[in-house]
Amino acid sequence: MNAATDFPIFPHSHLLGIAGLSYPDVETLLNRANANVDVSRQRDKKKSVLRGLTHINLFFEASTRTQASFELAGKRLGADVMNMAVASSSVKKGETLIDTAMTLNAMRPDILVIRHSAAGAAALLSQKVGCAVINAGDGAHEHPTQALLDALTIRRAKGRLDGLTVAICGDVLHSRVARSNIILLNTMGARVRVVGPSTLMPTAIRQMGTEVFTSMREGLDGADVVMMLRLQRERMGQALVPSVREYFRHYGLDAAKLAHAKPDALVMHPGPMNRGVEIASGIADGPQSVIEEQVEMGVAVRMAVIEALLDPRKNDGATG
Amino acid sequence: MNAATDFPIFPHSHLLGIAGLSYPDVETLLNRANANVDVSRQRDKKKSVLRGLTHINLFFEASTRTQASFELAGKRLGADVMNMAVASSSVKKGETLIDTAMTLNAMRPDILVIRHSAAGAAALLSQKVGCAVINAGDGAHEHPTQALLDALTIRRAKGRLDGLTVAICGDVLHSRVARSNIILLNTMGARVRVVGPSTLMPTAIRQMGTEVFTSMREGLDGADVVMMLRLQRERMGQALVPSVREYFRHYGLDAAKLAHAKPDALVMHPGPMNRGVEIASGIADGPQSVIEEQVEMGVAVRMAVIEALLDPRKNDGATG
Amino acid sequence: MNAATDFPIFPHSHLLGIAGLSYPDVETLLNRANANVDVSRQRDKKKSVLRGLTHINLFFEASTRTQASFELAGKRLGADVMNMAVASSSVKKGETLIDTAMTLNAMRPDILVIRHSAAGAAALLSQKVGCAVINAGDGAHEHPTQALLDALTIRRAKGRLDGLTVAICGDVLHSRVARSNIILLNTMGARVRVVGPSTLMPTAIRQMGTEVFTSMREGLDGADVVMMLRLQRERMGQALVPSVREYFRHYGLDAAKLAHAKPDALVMHPGPMNRGVEIASGIADGPQSVIEEQVEMGVAVRMAVIEALLDPRKNDGATG
Repeated sequence: MNAATDFPIFPHSHLLGIAGLSYPDVETLLNRANANVDVSRQRDKKKSVLRGLTHINLFFEASTRTQASFELAGKRLGADVMNMAVASSSVKKGETLIDTAMTLNAMRPDILVIRHSAAGAAALLSQKVGCAVINAGDGAHEHPTQALLDALTIRRAKGRLDGLTVAICGDVLHSRVARSNIILLNTMGARVRVVGPSTLMPTAIRQMGTEVFTSMREGLDGADVVMMLRLQRERMGQALVPSVREYFRHYGLDAAKLAHAKPDALVMHPGPMNRGVEIASGIADGPQSVIEEQVEMGVAVRMAVIEALLDPRKNDGATG
Repeated sequence: MNAATDFPIFPHSHLLGIAGLSYPDVETLLNRANANVDVSRQRDKKKSVLRGLTHINLFFEASTRTQASFELAGKRLGADVMNMAVASSSVKKGETLIDTAMTLNAMRPDILVIRHSAAGAAALLSQKVGCAVINAGDGAHEHPTQALLDALTIRRAKGRLDGLTVAICGDVLHSRVARSNIILLNTMGARVRVVGPSTLMPTAIRQMGTEVFTSMREGLDGADVVMMLRLQRERMGQALVPSVREYFRHYGLDAAKLAHAKPDALVMHPGPMNRGVEIASGIADGPQSVIEEQVEMGVAVRMAVIEALLDPRKNDGATG
Repeated sequence: MNAATDFPIFPHSHLLGIAGLSYPDVETLLNRANANVDVSRQRDKKKSVLRGLTHINLFFEASTRTQASFELAGKRLGADVMNMAVASSSVKKGETLIDTAMTLNAMRPDILVIRHSAAGAAALLSQKVGCAVINAGDGAHEHPTQALLDALTIRRAKGRLDGLTVAICGDVLHSRVARSNIILLNTMGARVRVVGPSTLMPTAIRQMGTEVFTSMREGLDGADVVMMLRLQRERMGQALVPSVREYFRHYGLDAAKLAHAKPDALVMHPGPMNRGVEIASGIADGPQSVIEEQVEMGVAVRMAVIEALLDPRKNDGATG
């Protein structure tokens, strides 16, 4: 396999967000990731290209699924993976985030995956440490590997991203997943709609290159992909939390609402799902759902991102 | 070594309980496990037959010792082991157990070890996922690897299981350890007695092929093995918790009570021990105690179970 | 490389404290550690001399940084590392520490790293288990790998330890770090001063071979190394906790106080720092600070200690 041809060299030192990635950057990562899907489907899932390297997961917010996905990605690449769960309560100052990061940096990791409640935490870290940083979610800012795994899931099902109509539905306001997906889908030539109550819509949403809908019927009309978001009640002020029953009636994805999308529209959710809140159980488990494939693509995408950032060829060429 | 002859092919896809295992099934696992004891006694404890495979420990109930035993078993077989500790509090619905399991399953593990407070959780999971499932304890139902390690401990000390008289003593009602042991010992031809207060005895206990005693003196009379159970006060209603002093006086294993068993009777406990409650410290640390050997056999047995379930020969033969 | 000449055989079975180590013992460990610094600076950080061995971290007190350092040390040596975080609350009796340790010991680890709130816990353990024990901090008693990493940091910066003047400043009373450092520095021929309020000074401090100062100005005068300690407010009775502002004014390391030391004096801190309490931020991040190098040396030192204790040559020679 002519790897140099198949996978152009990724010119970035960190993955802090989808913002800043070009069309070829995303293509590179999705192509690499697609090749990794089969690695995890074999009995021997080990692709020991990163043997002897150190990968640290530094999670200031608990996240069972994302941390597990990164852990398996690192292990399947042969790296030594260390998880650091840091209670947010013990980290009160911005300084302390930096002190923690500098301490870990002094232990000479090759890759640092960070999740933090503050927007910009990953970028701040990347300026301080000597290793590659991957943003695994920073506040309501970005969650780039989620957008990449969503894109890979769509591309494998539909054969392309450009020209598709994707409806992102629900709590857009609190969602770094929505934000990263909007940027990626625009970069790749898809048409992006956001659908949700106006109270859960960022004020600057129209400037992000989206069409905005408050009606699921209109927002889903003719869509190729229906991407549901988790209702993040824990990030809302008490007064703003909608009634679950009301929310489901207007914005929960059920068969009636889904009928407005194309008959072969994909149903997606980043998980963990609140069944009966954002999505009816029958739809989550139905034939149009690709929710489990999203999880599978997550490992493949994270392997690809880690590989791209640690690719030794970066040190040899002019584009590094 | 002619492995194919020594270790007949294990015909099961999962280990959900001792119920359903035949005499040769148990023999297969104990023979495999016995060969693994020496692996852990060497300097290099690595038997990398499962290199590149993924083993996930999914523990909804905390268990330092059982999780550690499975973790070391997987690592010594060369698998990549990932621990997922899930707080029971965050898992309120049966659906969510399944969603968590399906998410992990999409990450393509080869083996999923589950502990859960609900009887039947492991069986439910095994119907949903595409990998081998091992029950590491489901409510008061079964804990099959504990029964297997107990059997291996007894067999190594006594040379056999059939014909032995085993007294299982204490809180039988709440004990999945007792349940799995009763089934295994009956399968292997031992005579099983249960001894304890009638309030801690399941109503259907006689139908399980046991003799029931409320007196330690009578229950231990002439026994080859005295297997103590942990008093699970955390599973009892407030009113039912016995006085520790009263409990020890009637059912705690001390020298006077042990004198009724055979002089070379083995003393066993699954741990963690409440010293001075179920067992006197002098007996726990005494010459008849095999409590630490039980722990050592635990790693060997879990290695054997994982190997048996993941044996590549299963894919080649007709019995798979 | 003539390893046998470079690294004389380490004659100890455990590392319980600096007390008991000779000048050549410390030299052996520092030389080994110094050679390991470059291992972690390479892309492939794996030095698989301990492949197939089992390393267990048994931490009864939470410690993100020390546990991480030991975990990476073990992994980079090729061992299988298992972390056991045991809540102190679940361990109420001395017996239970032993039961936990005996359980782990039965799983046949090669190395057991223990941190515990009770002085003497590591020594007690070492008498019970069949593997090498490393004390990662026992109450206010010792923390030997911290003293070794501090010594390596100083030796690399200054070329030697003997003849240097080292001022250890702050909460000496509660500090196992201070205690281990005082013993090591005396063994290696440094002159040790302790500086702090008399309320935070052990009564027997003068018998440890130190000069005692209550004034930072006098204590730091002409010092080659200024080693700050963390103010351990969590170990103080309520009435004794000093005002942070007062403490910083008298004992916090700022530019004015540091000016009394030699112009090229090293500034050290074991971490985690309370910035603005023991040390001004500008000094912690300033040109004399070697705080991050201390962390880096930590991994190298812990690798050296583990290697020394598990060196197979110990079994061949007469000094083992």
